[in-house]
Amino acid sequence: MLMLGMDTSAVAASVALWEDGRLLGENFVNVKLTHSQTILPMVQSLLDSCDRKISQVETFAVSAGPGSFTGLRIGISAVKGMAFASNNPCIPVSTLEALAYQLSGQECIAIPAMDARCQQVYTAAFRVGRDGVQRLSEDAAMSISQLQAKIQEFSDGLPRILVGDGAQLCYNCWEGSDVLLAPEHLRFQRAGAVCMAALHHLSEAVSPADLAPRYLRLPQAQRELLKKQESNRVLS
Amino acid sequence: MLMLGMDTSAVAASVALWEDGRLLGENFVNVKLTHSQTILPMVQSLLDSCDRKISQVETFAVSAGPGSFTGLRIGISAVKGMAFASNNPCIPVSTLEALAYQLSGQECIAIPAMDARCQQVYTAAFRVGRDGVQRLSEDAAMSISQLQAKIQEFSDGLPRILVGDGAQLCYNCWEGSDVLLAPEHLRFQRAGAVCMAALHHLSEAVSPADLAPRYLRLPQAQRELLKKQESNRVLS
Repeated sequence: MLMLGMDTSAVAASVALWEDGRLLGENFVNVKLTHSQTILPMVQSLLDSCDRKISQVETFAVSAGPGSFTGLRIGISAVKGMAFASNNPCIPVSTLEALAYQLSGQECIAIPAMDARCQQVYTAAFRVGRDGVQRLSEDAAMSISQLQAKIQEFSDGLPRILVGDGAQLCYNCWEGSDVLLAPEHLRFQRAGAVCMAALHHLSEAVSPADLAPRYLRLPQAQRELLKKQESNRVLS
Repeated sequence: MLMLGMDTSAVAASVALWEDGRLLGENFVNVKLTHSQTILPMVQSLLDSCDRKISQVETFAVSAGPGSFTGLRIGISAVKGMAFASNNPCIPVSTLEALAYQLSGQECIAIPAMDARCQQVYTAAFRVGRDGVQRLSEDAAMSISQLQAKIQEFSDGLPRILVGDGAQLCYNCWEGSDVLLAPEHLRFQRAGAVCMAALHHLSEAVSPADLAPRYLRLPQAQRELLKKQESNRVLS
């Protein structure tokens, strides 16, 4: 089965092709550019490099959240578009779970952390071992200091490793902590790991029409609107 | 400093851009295609995706061997060509050392193994730890069974991990061994790790004219010629 994976959940963007247990190819960039302009040329270039055609792709996998609101919508829309013509199944993957898969091969507690601005992160915890990746806590948004308190729960002798575009942010805030930072080449969201995670969620595939981002918070505009409506309600 | 890294030492091919401690982007394919046709389009596509120009690249890094004779010559030639106009420095990197850097972030003994055909591998050993990568043995060609005997030297309690395009081959031959196999996404040669290794060998940079592949064995054609000459000498 040929699977195309995509991640546009933050500044980095990537696409990958996975076929019968093998990573055929991956294009990854970690530069502040407009994903809506770069992602489809990246798909085309990857297909060309791997001598494959978009019509040969049988399943799509995509980071469905948490992440940047605009970023997620670009990835989801691109995948919806590509899967629409053939009505191929789409597998929405937790961006945080995909990050944990990047640490596959190690024995550790993966603490994915994505920058949610204002000293907040999107985070979860996973046990990564030779036997696979096991979720320890649900995806959640919390402050960096709340996360520092929460990770005390996960200390059964395994190294705890921060991974994700918010990992350095947490690491810098937690001076003196024994929590480790994933190395540069494994730290940021990558589509290869989105495919790896998707292979464990094949039964959760949806039609392109039903594919939707999974936000942990309302977008800022909606949060501000609700706040305004609330304060108006109190005043009236 | 903007560095462009390249690996074409085996079936997989990849290019990466590294800038000031960050992996800006990486294009990786692991498909049996002609590197001479695919590698420069991959460079162009990566530069485009990262919004960089070839004229901005200040240093080149390349897997110089061991590896496929033709593969190495394609990578070396492409890098020579790109570096020639600006006379930029080129850093030749041991393909095996770059493979060890792929396991950065772990505490382990990395056993890179590249398929050298006829049940032979190119191999070496490295201690990978939080403090970096330390070479334990020189690059060498040996049989898969010789390697199995040799790795007994490296067993100070750390997990021993096979990595490289010959890793699966060794793993399959060593049934019952406690040696581990690097996960799929980290198993094959990647240009990002070539850049990581090159950053520790900046002082070994050479001019494009002096850049040359480092073979561990003579090419098969030359080996056969020598054998023929030797048997003729004995007969005459």
